[in-house]
Amino acid sequence: MAARVGIIMGSRSDWDTMQHGAQALTDLGIAHEVQVVSAHRTPDLLFHYAAQAEGRGLRVLIAGAGGAAHLPGMVAAKTMLPVLGVPVQSQALNGLDSLLSIVQMPAGVPVATFAIGKAGAINAALFAAALLAAYDSAIREALAAFRARQTEAVLAHGDPRIP
Amino acid sequence: MAARVGIIMGSRSDWDTMQHGAQALTDLGIAHEVQVVSAHRTPDLLFHYAAQAEGRGLRVLIAGAGGAAHLPGMVAAKTMLPVLGVPVQSQALNGLDSLLSIVQMPAGVPVATFAIGKAGAINAALFAAALLAAYDSAIREALAAFRARQTEAVLAHGDPRIP
Amino acid sequence: MAARVGIIMGSRSDWDTMQHGAQALTDLGIAHEVQVVSAHRTPDLLFHYAAQAEGRGLRVLIAGAGGAAHLPGMVAAKTMLPVLGVPVQSQALNGLDSLLSIVQMPAGVPVATFAIGKAGAINAALFAAALLAAYDSAIREALAAFRARQTEAVLAHGDPRIP
Amino acid sequence: MAARVGIIMGSRSDWDTMQHGAQALTDLGIAHEVQVVSAHRTPDLLFHYAAQAEGRGLRVLIAGAGGAAHLPGMVAAKTMLPVLGVPVQSQALNGLDSLLSIVQMPAGVPVATFAIGKAGAINAALFAAALLAAYDSAIREALAAFRARQTEAVLAHGDPRIP
Amino acid sequence: MAARVGIIMGSRSDWDTMQHGAQALTDLGIAHEVQVVSAHRTPDLLFHYAAQAEGRGLRVLIAGAGGAAHLPGMVAAKTMLPVLGVPVQSQALNGLDSLLSIVQMPAGVPVATFAIGKAGAINAALFAAALLAAYDSAIREALAAFRARQTEAVLAHGDPRIP
Amino acid sequence: MAARVGIIMGSRSDWDTMQHGAQALTDLGIAHEVQVVSAHRTPDLLFHYAAQAEGRGLRVLIAGAGGAAHLPGMVAAKTMLPVLGVPVQSQALNGLDSLLSIVQMPAGVPVATFAIGKAGAINAALFAAALLAAYDSAIREALAAFRARQTEAVLAHGDPRIP
Amino acid sequence: MAARVGIIMGSRSDWDTMQHGAQALTDLGIAHEVQVVSAHRTPDLLFHYAAQAEGRGLRVLIAGAGGAAHLPGMVAAKTMLPVLGVPVQSQALNGLDSLLSIVQMPAGVPVATFAIGKAGAINAALFAAALLAAYDSAIREALAAFRARQTEAVLAHGDPRIP
Amino acid sequence: MAARVGIIMGSRSDWDTMQHGAQALTDLGIAHEVQVVSAHRTPDLLFHYAAQAEGRGLRVLIAGAGGAAHLPGMVAAKTMLPVLGVPVQSQALNGLDSLLSIVQMPAGVPVATFAIGKAGAINAALFAAALLAAYDSAIREALAAFRARQTEAVLAHGDPRIP
Repeated sequence: MAARVGIIMGSRSDWDTMQHGAQALTDLGIAHEVQVVSAHRTPDLLFHYAAQAEGRGLRVLIAGAGGAAHLPGMVAAKTMLPVLGVPVQSQALNGLDSLLSIVQMPAGVPVATFAIGKAGAINAALFAAALLAAYDSAIREALAAFRARQTEAVLAHGDPRIP
Repeated sequence: MAARVGIIMGSRSDWDTMQHGAQALTDLGIAHEVQVVSAHRTPDLLFHYAAQAEGRGLRVLIAGAGGAAHLPGMVAAKTMLPVLGVPVQSQALNGLDSLLSIVQMPAGVPVATFAIGKAGAINAALFAAALLAAYDSAIREALAAFRARQTEAVLAHGDPRIP
Repeated sequence: MAARVGIIMGSRSDWDTMQHGAQALTDLGIAHEVQVVSAHRTPDLLFHYAAQAEGRGLRVLIAGAGGAAHLPGMVAAKTMLPVLGVPVQSQALNGLDSLLSIVQMPAGVPVATFAIGKAGAINAALFAAALLAAYDSAIREALAAFRARQTEAVLAHGDPRIP
Repeated sequence: MAARVGIIMGSRSDWDTMQHGAQALTDLGIAHEVQVVSAHRTPDLLFHYAAQAEGRGLRVLIAGAGGAAHLPGMVAAKTMLPVLGVPVQSQALNGLDSLLSIVQMPAGVPVATFAIGKAGAINAALFAAALLAAYDSAIREALAAFRARQTEAVLAHGDPRIP
Repeated sequence: MAARVGIIMGSRSDWDTMQHGAQALTDLGIAHEVQVVSAHRTPDLLFHYAAQAEGRGLRVLIAGAGGAAHLPGMVAAKTMLPVLGVPVQSQALNGLDSLLSIVQMPAGVPVATFAIGKAGAINAALFAAALLAAYDSAIREALAAFRARQTEAVLAHGDPRIP
Repeated sequence: MAARVGIIMGSRSDWDTMQHGAQALTDLGIAHEVQVVSAHRTPDLLFHYAAQAEGRGLRVLIAGAGGAAHLPGMVAAKTMLPVLGVPVQSQALNGLDSLLSIVQMPAGVPVATFAIGKAGAINAALFAAALLAAYDSAIREALAAFRARQTEAVLAHGDPRIP
Repeated sequence: MAARVGIIMGSRSDWDTMQHGAQALTDLGIAHEVQVVSAHRTPDLLFHYAAQAEGRGLRVLIAGAGGAAHLPGMVAAKTMLPVLGVPVQSQALNGLDSLLSIVQMPAGVPVATFAIGKAGAINAALFAAALLAAYDSAIREALAAFRARQTEAVLAHGDPRIP
Repeated sequence: MAARVGIIMGSRSDWDTMQHGAQALTDLGIAHEVQVVSAHRTPDLLFHYAAQAEGRGLRVLIAGAGGAAHLPGMVAAKTMLPVLGVPVQSQALNGLDSLLSIVQMPAGVPVATFAIGKAGAINAALFAAALLAAYDSAIREALAAFRARQTEAVLAHGDPRIP
């Protein structure tokens, strides 16, 4: 099945974070592709990837990066597809730099931003599912089932003193 | 035309910010509705609004709030529609509290977050347009035209010394 | 004895922090209950819990949560009981996000906020005791004894060089 | 009627903030007193005030201070009454220093902390009302009426475009 | 005289800041050019500008931007010329977002970063002069004269009480 | 009378802040001198001033600076006199940069740091008085009188509602 | 020999930090005493200690505390001796709360503040030595010897590649 | 070959960070020297080093320091050579203090600042290479080769799932 979601990241080390988003997509049965695309080390690849994404059938892009994280915003500058940004936790500033570099986009070119780190990667995947669910009933059902399961899990284990 | 986008905000004073998002939707020809829904002062309305939104035909929700901004996250907890959060600039902490309250959602329930203030409100609207463009060619064309115009505007006025 | 204090938390992992508050209540002889209630994964349970709390005889609620911590504020929106918020230390931002999400409530719906982490959990319990002490002399005596003991402990071991 | 709530503040300039709390108490019909007590310039008065407060019939103390705000914590060290802290917005750091100085109390002596500035002053007053409501039905009714009114106000003016 | 320094900025409003750098270059007799190049609204122009800069005879690039400031880093990704970044003071976060977006570049592609706002714009210009001074004695003399004058100015007006 | 305290500052604009310290010294009858000494624009003067200060009879140095504030630490590196640092409120970051640049000295060379802005300037002067009071009874009496007066002022105007 | 410097700290765990200051004083041959004095758990001891310090022959007080660190400021409120504050590194906020709670004192009661953690404890001790050196030539010589030794140590081991 | 780049750092412990910059220079074939120069413990050496650097044939200086990092700015005050500052990650504040102490230089004396820690050290070295490349074709070729290799490395290992 052709990939509907493209997950890209600024360096191989970001995979520790982004794999949680890829797993969430897999769990929901959403075809996706994964690639390292560095805004600073491979700018031409970034432009090419972003410009070709829609034509290749991708419907949403998830971009993770840390520090001075320019990948999500620059991808958004080169495509009209929805771009979801995941701030990867950085070494010195714990991802505050990543978050501000992604979320504080000026008016005109939006990047939908999620939480720093693993939670953000998972939520970007769930959000991608919500977008696709608008016109794909199988994804909609998978997402609804996931939401129901996670609610059940809390209800079933409400006493934190019982392991 | 029935509203496709619901813009809600935690208090009337947030309209100063959110109106820029409403205007952007109007400019793109996207039908929308606007309402004050306070997470803390009208929690039942919040739940009702979120739970009914999809059934009423809304396809995206934009929620703006400031300070301990719970509106976007709680709406997202009660709907499977995509929820876009706009951190309104707060008085003491300049919106850093609003931003962290919205973006740092735990894994499981995503809120797509945009920049603090006016830029975030506009970008949430543009992002809503990008979502709808996936299955509405008129919106897609309007968005493409907007993007082209803003590129032209920079190119046409590239010398900042000429007013 | 019926619980007078309800301790709730957004996820099972918060128990590492909140158990210190539960222990403090136990030490003071204050009956309490403990439950995981997730604002985002179980919003209906949150509303039900908050709306029923006073009728079930609870007199104070302690709510701990991390990241975009909406639990304390949303509970406060659905009850007139005093709500005490404990910011759980988060992974990336060390609980600064949790703190701001809880303490920066807009005027109209208060949440009494305590320190990030274990100290906050203990102090919320001690504060709950102080509230109950206003009309329960046994709790008042237990709290006074605790305060006296902790003063004694400092006075008795004033030289930090002696283990 | 004898004061039930004592509002103190570190300097006269804090009255700009704290008067909103006093007004909220007045609106709810709660007798209160108001005094400047400086932790640093009048430490003996601070100790005297805190030590005598319960004996004089006060049931809750609200302490507002800015910068290195030691007033709430030191009052709490000298009384078993519930102490509510209001971080006053400071000149250089916008009240972040006030907030951290008040909320980050070590385990053993709690201060219930509210938002920076006017919202915090109002919410401290509403929280004081919630405490007193546990054994004063008139205050309980006044608080319930206030809550109902503020919910009504949002519901009645839900369209922010209509002034 | 052909421009040796290219000053670019993300939007026309950045000119308020960047003009101080342009003026400093003028004062030092250094030929330069000025242009608005938006990373997000005109990404192709950004790539074209950066890729052509060295061939057109430019020797240093100064790039100013605010918020999620991607311009300096992306220019640096497309040229081997030294790139100097100026964080423009942003509305909500006072330029902290601009600073972190520019300075926290990952290893491999450097951007030399200067202070937020006007001081940074001037210092970027002075730094550009220092670079050119390595092989242009006229610039070296102009810079030395500037440095001497500013030292003299402090020495001549050392009593701040005399206007 | 020969100056006992030297007040220096990094630029003439710092006088707006530092004059409050000078006034406090005047009020206490402490002879002092005032001079602009820029760490960056007049480094030789800085070294000369610091190295000569003790020989000229100065007993304490107060150094105010903003932004990357190197003046207090570098003066301390060149003298054994006590150096008091005053972080001047900066334009973009409100003096947080000034504070951290002054207070975070590595072990070996101390700078006694005071609050950002006017309060810090006044407190540095009062602290200088406390140092001199150790061996100057007139200053000791003046300081004691000042402390008594400020306590009286609070006690005499304890009701903030009376102008 | 009677103690000239009093080192106090808010809890026994602060000794890990403060012992470095005590060691520095020992190395300089300065008699000192060490005691745990908790602002919040033993407020009366705090007042007693501060009020008696000068009469007992102490000439400088060093107070270390973490979190909402009120000890240095409250000691300063009860004595005219110079008070040196050391922000102990806290668990969640790394000592930023400790620093702001100590340094941001309002005008009227100064606390000389040093760096967060071990460096601050050592520098407070060195600063105490500088104060005493004004009228104790043995301490002055010891301090001068220490300064010379630390300069020598850098000069003698200037190549960091040689262990 | 005579050193073209001088790498200095405030203490031996900074070598853990700065060695990555030295290695990058070695890899590019750029002769350099390395020395510990402490702004606070060896101020005279700092002045001497800075004042002699240009005469000794150095063309760029790289200065790394942590905490209240004054080394880069003070070196810049004493030379007209380009000074590159590297904020070393500090213990308590993770290098935010180092960064602000270096980057927020007032107008008149620039320091080109790079990222906190290892990435900053490497990028300062790469930037030094870019400066020298303007008049040294061997360095220019080495730098171009490095840039090409790092682009190749990303392109060749684009799938993060393959180790």
